[in-house]
Amino acid sequence: MLSERDRLHAFLAESVVAHLGVVVGDRPVVLPMAFAADLAGPDPGGSLYLHGSVAAGWLDRALGAPVCVTVTELDGLVLARSGFHHSMNYRSAVVIGTVRRVEDSSERRRALDLIIDQMMPGRAATLRPPTKKELAATAVLAVPLREASLKVREGGPVDDEQDLDAPVWAGHIPIRRVAGPPITAPDSRIRSAPHTSSLAARGGRPGGERPEDG
Amino acid sequence: MLSERDRLHAFLAESVVAHLGVVVGDRPVVLPMAFAADLAGPDPGGSLYLHGSVAAGWLDRALGAPVCVTVTELDGLVLARSGFHHSMNYRSAVVIGTVRRVEDSSERRRALDLIIDQMMPGRAATLRPPTKKELAATAVLAVPLREASLKVREGGPVDDEQDLDAPVWAGHIPIRRVAGPPITAPDSRIRSAPHTSSLAARGGRPGGERPEDG
Repeated sequence: MLSERDRLHAFLAESVVAHLGVVVGDRPVVLPMAFAADLAGPDPGGSLYLHGSVAAGWLDRALGAPVCVTVTELDGLVLARSGFHHSMNYRSAVVIGTVRRVEDSSERRRALDLIIDQMMPGRAATLRPPTKKELAATAVLAVPLREASLKVREGGPVDDEQDLDAPVWAGHIPIRRVAGPPITAPDSRIRSAPHTSSLAARGGRPGGERPEDG
Repeated sequence: MLSERDRLHAFLAESVVAHLGVVVGDRPVVLPMAFAADLAGPDPGGSLYLHGSVAAGWLDRALGAPVCVTVTELDGLVLARSGFHHSMNYRSAVVIGTVRRVEDSSERRRALDLIIDQMMPGRAATLRPPTKKELAATAVLAVPLREASLKVREGGPVDDEQDLDAPVWAGHIPIRRVAGPPITAPDSRIRSAPHTSSLAARGGRPGGERPEDG
């Protein structure tokens, strides 16, 4: 039996897009971005890493400020017998904390590698190291994983008793991400694409495979 | 040729999950939720509708306050020859505005129907009308669509010239949502499930069908 914490970690390991919320002036700004979680990271509860261009305007505003990082996967549509009980199946992690700028060079390298490996496991080790110029242009941010929660809705609709005989179909429709066949860049020297089966746990499943439902 | 505004509207019509950012105290909160856009809605530029339980804590905080509604679809992973140029293909709409609570009863009904039809086109017309109690428990919020933008990244990696001969595969991997076979509720009187082909444009594609890539 997985603990809620284990479920949260497993979910963060298999999703690829986070929505970062920061306050700019008195206004909220919500931006999609790549991320990676490192349970062994130096922040309390582990570290959630984000990166961005040092030129990005939101970045300086986010430093030392409270942020909210929300990671959501849609798992299905729930069609009830009343509009009121329509819903969605989903998993959604919410991480709240203060942003730390990662300055240590080995932690920066590790965080950037983790963000690449989040997209495709093992990818970072196949690439040349980043140049000084690239590193200087990239800000790496960390948010502690301590204040984090996972909300999950799954299964079919929950209807009111008086609606059970309604002449309308009730149930749920599972939704999954699938990865299509890789498209090799025209100028890629290596022509054999990676197996997309390695994406099975990255929010995408192998192309054309029927998703398991249940 | 579609205008940027047309593209934004088309994107909002085919996605099902929004991330709402609100400021609570001095902290941002980002929550996933269902939504629908009504280009004919009474707000400047049309209306983006959200709904929630009147008991939800964030709701009162959001009224009259600036919010940010971000809708993102991940379309692919972009694997470059350097870590620096790794990226994702995506479409992301950002709507910024002040939340209005919808009080007019016909607008409320229309907004709730639109949110249900966003999940499955035509579904709302097959359901009984909401009860007074259900309506009283539901807050409907509107955000003007005037201040909205769509950001799109598509295609393959853009590598630095000196990396072009690197011995690593470069390209992109399309990612799509697919809808699996519907799962009928055990107590559903109607046993024949809706055609998931009607979900093709709702962020999901018919189950098992190979996504078109390109």
